[in-house]
Amino acid sequence: MSDRREFRDLASPAELESVIAALDIGGGTEHVPLAAAHGRVLADRVEATLDVPGFDRAAMDGYAVRASDTAGAGEVDPAVLSLAGAVHAGERPDVTVDPETAVEVSTGAVLPPGADAVVMVERTTEREDAVEVRTAVTPGQHVMAAGRDVAAGTRVLGPGTRISPREVGLLSALGVESVPVVPAPTVGIVSTGDELVPPGDPLDHEAGQIYDVNSGAVAAGVAAAGGEPRQYDRVGDDKAAMERVLRDAAEECDLVLSSGSTSASTMDVIYRVLEETGERLLHGVAVKPGKPTIVGRLAGTPYVGLPGYPVSALTIFRTFIAPSLRDAAGRSRPATATIEAEMAVGERYTEGRRRLMPVGLVAAGDGRTVAYPVDKGSGATTTLLDADGIVDCPADVTYLDEGQTVTVDLFSPDSHPPAVLGVGEGDPTLSTVLDDLPGARYLTHGAVAGARSLRRGIADVAVVTDSVETPSAGTVVGGWEREWGLVVGDAVAVDGLADLVGDVAVATLDDQWGLGASYRDALARLATERDESVAAVSDAVAAVETAGLESPARRVADGRADVGVGLQTTAEAVGQAFVPLGTERVDVVVAADRVEKDGVRRLIEALDECGLGAPTETDP
Amino acid sequence: MSDRREFRDLASPAELESVIAALDIGGGTEHVPLAAAHGRVLADRVEATLDVPGFDRAAMDGYAVRASDTAGAGEVDPAVLSLAGAVHAGERPDVTVDPETAVEVSTGAVLPPGADAVVMVERTTEREDAVEVRTAVTPGQHVMAAGRDVAAGTRVLGPGTRISPREVGLLSALGVESVPVVPAPTVGIVSTGDELVPPGDPLDHEAGQIYDVNSGAVAAGVAAAGGEPRQYDRVGDDKAAMERVLRDAAEECDLVLSSGSTSASTMDVIYRVLEETGERLLHGVAVKPGKPTIVGRLAGTPYVGLPGYPVSALTIFRTFIAPSLRDAAGRSRPATATIEAEMAVGERYTEGRRRLMPVGLVAAGDGRTVAYPVDKGSGATTTLLDADGIVDCPADVTYLDEGQTVTVDLFSPDSHPPAVLGVGEGDPTLSTVLDDLPGARYLTHGAVAGARSLRRGIADVAVVTDSVETPSAGTVVGGWEREWGLVVGDAVAVDGLADLVGDVAVATLDDQWGLGASYRDALARLATERDESVAAVSDAVAAVETAGLESPARRVADGRADVGVGLQTTAEAVGQAFVPLGTERVDVVVAADRVEKDGVRRLIEALDECGLGAPTETDP
Repeated sequence: MSDRREFRDLASPAELESVIAALDIGGGTEHVPLAAAHGRVLADRVEATLDVPGFDRAAMDGYAVRASDTAGAGEVDPAVLSLAGAVHAGERPDVTVDPETAVEVSTGAVLPPGADAVVMVERTTEREDAVEVRTAVTPGQHVMAAGRDVAAGTRVLGPGTRISPREVGLLSALGVESVPVVPAPTVGIVSTGDELVPPGDPLDHEAGQIYDVNSGAVAAGVAAAGGEPRQYDRVGDDKAAMERVLRDAAEECDLVLSSGSTSASTMDVIYRVLEETGERLLHGVAVKPGKPTIVGRLAGTPYVGLPGYPVSALTIFRTFIAPSLRDAAGRSRPATATIEAEMAVGERYTEGRRRLMPVGLVAAGDGRTVAYPVDKGSGATTTLLDADGIVDCPADVTYLDEGQTVTVDLFSPDSHPPAVLGVGEGDPTLSTVLDDLPGARYLTHGAVAGARSLRRGIADVAVVTDSVETPSAGTVVGGWEREWGLVVGDAVAVDGLADLVGDVAVATLDDQWGLGASYRDALARLATERDESVAAVSDAVAAVETAGLESPARRVADGRADVGVGLQTTAEAVGQAFVPLGTERVDVVVAADRVEKDGVRRLIEALDECGLGAPTETDP
Repeated sequence: MSDRREFRDLASPAELESVIAALDIGGGTEHVPLAAAHGRVLADRVEATLDVPGFDRAAMDGYAVRASDTAGAGEVDPAVLSLAGAVHAGERPDVTVDPETAVEVSTGAVLPPGADAVVMVERTTEREDAVEVRTAVTPGQHVMAAGRDVAAGTRVLGPGTRISPREVGLLSALGVESVPVVPAPTVGIVSTGDELVPPGDPLDHEAGQIYDVNSGAVAAGVAAAGGEPRQYDRVGDDKAAMERVLRDAAEECDLVLSSGSTSASTMDVIYRVLEETGERLLHGVAVKPGKPTIVGRLAGTPYVGLPGYPVSALTIFRTFIAPSLRDAAGRSRPATATIEAEMAVGERYTEGRRRLMPVGLVAAGDGRTVAYPVDKGSGATTTLLDADGIVDCPADVTYLDEGQTVTVDLFSPDSHPPAVLGVGEGDPTLSTVLDDLPGARYLTHGAVAGARSLRRGIADVAVVTDSVETPSAGTVVGGWEREWGLVVGDAVAVDGLADLVGDVAVATLDDQWGLGASYRDALARLATERDESVAAVSDAVAAVETAGLESPARRVADGRADVGVGLQTTAEAVGQAFVPLGTERVDVVVAADRVEKDGVRRLIEALDECGLGAPTETDP
């Protein structure tokens, strides 16, 4: 325990910014085939090395003529020219336009020698070996002169140009096969930590394993910023392996990012490699999240050690690294997208570090946009998913008042508050309704949390059960009943609640859940029947509380519990027996001042279409 | 000539829209590895099939305890617990926390059996076989309960969700290896036309060959809309080959686009294949550009025949096809990006079709945004490149007045008027200055066009030469001299202007160019010396006019001319001999009311840095 590190002298966020900016990532020019150039950024100027078109070109179907031969021609007095031949697009002319002659041409054909104009076919009549021309043309008319589209020597595109379909068209016209572009900086991603398992591999919960979140998420962030991510094999906490991977990544990439374990032994290796092969420029930053960030050079290659927690790693990446990566990739920074919002609740914060606070947004009924802090705790992976952006609080701000206006830095310029925000109980029927509501956000935090969120003016909609208190204000717009009971594993014989007393390992739900409340109510009734105290019966059941609708059933399925509280549908889904104990009613409740929101109306329509709508009635 | 087709009954643009919308492109679900899922769109709902974390997890470095053992503990009266062992992240606990004991844990470790809280290390002191705890903790403190981040059974993502780095993180946390996404619609691109050559191949100008622009540009447009382009080999106008390629593409793709030749023979094949294997739904649309658009089904597969001209093909693609492709790919339509602008010049249009008019934008000095039509003529490839968006004019609008406000549909939400708009003479020195001015647009239309554009209130900056009239209003902010003369090929002996008279094929520049004017002035002086008329001397020289700075020299280099007018630097660039004839002055002139524009100031700074700036002086 001696080697726990503290950060006595934290760098300021501004120092972190300038150290990363000075790393000087990537550089140079690479040449890619035109077919792969779309979306890339030009490294050099492009000049036309040929005229486009390369010849005087007929711009219409018609007849190539000498303009002087059509002087005075009109509908009543056509010029009659003898027909000397024809030239089609892609043909070399084998005929000359002598005075008083014409040559048939199709659009795109080379203007034959002698001609200086084209008469469009609609103003002519072809006769045997001759053509009547019923209009006068001027020299150059209906002809695109050589080089008129792009002339040789023209500087057509400058360095820094992002190649869109229009630029691809121009480069095609110039015959450019190989395009000089800014290379995508290669970014090595090294994930450390004995507990991390690549997604898709089996997970041993009891050995404390979790899936590696940072590698994939940071790789996607790198790609979004114009870099080319390279994920290195996870190295656990094996010091020799970690050192080898770090050195390989430094050799092969323009930037190395590590994330994951910030354990003392991991840090020892990183410190040693930094000191032996490069330099440590900064360690520890006065920002939350992100305090343990390290910056340096590994064998000459820029290196950033990201914090291990996903929210911290992604926030530091997005705020401090992505901008430099975009610069290195020649990408312009995305349009700054911010929105003003009012804090739905007060927020206290006294750690004295600049804070990058994730917030969710919701449109209130009166047109205001409301922000609420999203914090699922250290190590949570879903925090950023439930957020729309970041409020950047300076270190000296210790309190944000309810109703205070804050500026939210949106995760993308396309971000906007969800069409409808629901909070409450998880339920399979609800999930089906939500699938038809693109743009809806639903936070499955349980019925109790849903009722609370509605009261606090955050949620538009709460989904509650009749086993918990109904929200004091709101309109029930729909609902349904669901059968609940016990999901029973093979190892025990359980036919009802009474059989739980004793040696049976029971998994139930925590106190946020309506389903958990139904279970506790049933247990209380059992106590009354037996004339015992509720506490006595509860204490006689060996129960653990879990956090979600299927968590108890999953524990039964994987043998960690004998019996779980759950729905009939869940028991079927996990292939376990089911003992019904009752039904509970699920209610969809809309905040009184949000009934007119478009997203809420669409939800009500969707409920009605499924036959789940309720006659509108307002609670007292 | 008998088979030229006319469109007597043009469909309305609204009909084109609804026919394309009804084509029902693509569909279904594909599964991609998580590492390839970034940027894709979920086809199905994702539910958590496990708790995250899967175990009660220490959220801090410290000691796992029974909270009740710390009741009343504080700085002055610590609880002393005996140390029973340690659990690190990724380890299976081999120890239990009995009453009055503690177990060392690191962040992320499994909470050992018996414990219900963690005391952070900072509030403890380790002694031999014991630990002093200087704070009381409550049950659950510094512990992330199993499923607290994501609980099994939670609906975490809905269909239609675009997968950003945050979603990749969540899917990683859930261990999802294979992600159900909306398949990118495959779009077959068939390019026809005997005259088309793939970029990179040699081009025979005299046989009327041009590079294939549409295939690459449309492919890039398809990719930008979320489709997967497949370019088929160019098939020329060979009927059998074209039929085979069209049928192959229909079999292999979700949508087939052809573009290129709209020659009668090509159309015959397309008509026949459409009629034999599918149906023709629409041919001919009342929109400019885009009249010859065809829509149908080829062997059951949606098909659109795009017009052959690049501007037409890309405009029809962007306006009518890209939205359906985005829908098929599950992509949301990009935020509508429009800007109000004033027409810099009047524009008349009387063809009675809806017109999609490309316009360029420029910020006037007074904050107004000014739009000017960009039209380089039928078949030009650079028109869209010089434009920022489209003004959509209904069929009954025949005139847009100078100063009239129009709504410009920008090519992308990031589009904005260039930092500075220059028009005028091409010049190598100028190109170097421009390379340091990202966001500048320069139209190399010649000194005469530059002066005119400045007068009309379009260009911020004109680049002119002293051989043409200086703009009547404007401030000269810089300039330089350049040596010009004759670029001379091997086949002739030319030492000066006098040697051009006779059988020498001379390439010069058209009347927009200052360099062309210098040549004509020199020829006039020669006539004076010889006491002949200018016309007589001019007629005695066999000269063709070309469109750009290097066009004459390139013609000398490829043998199409004996002598070309050009700069010394150009002669060197193309490896030809040079006979100097004089110097001309290039002037950079800023419109009087644009001097304060940021982009103009940066141009002036760049000129100053290169030593090309002029003492500011205003012309009368």
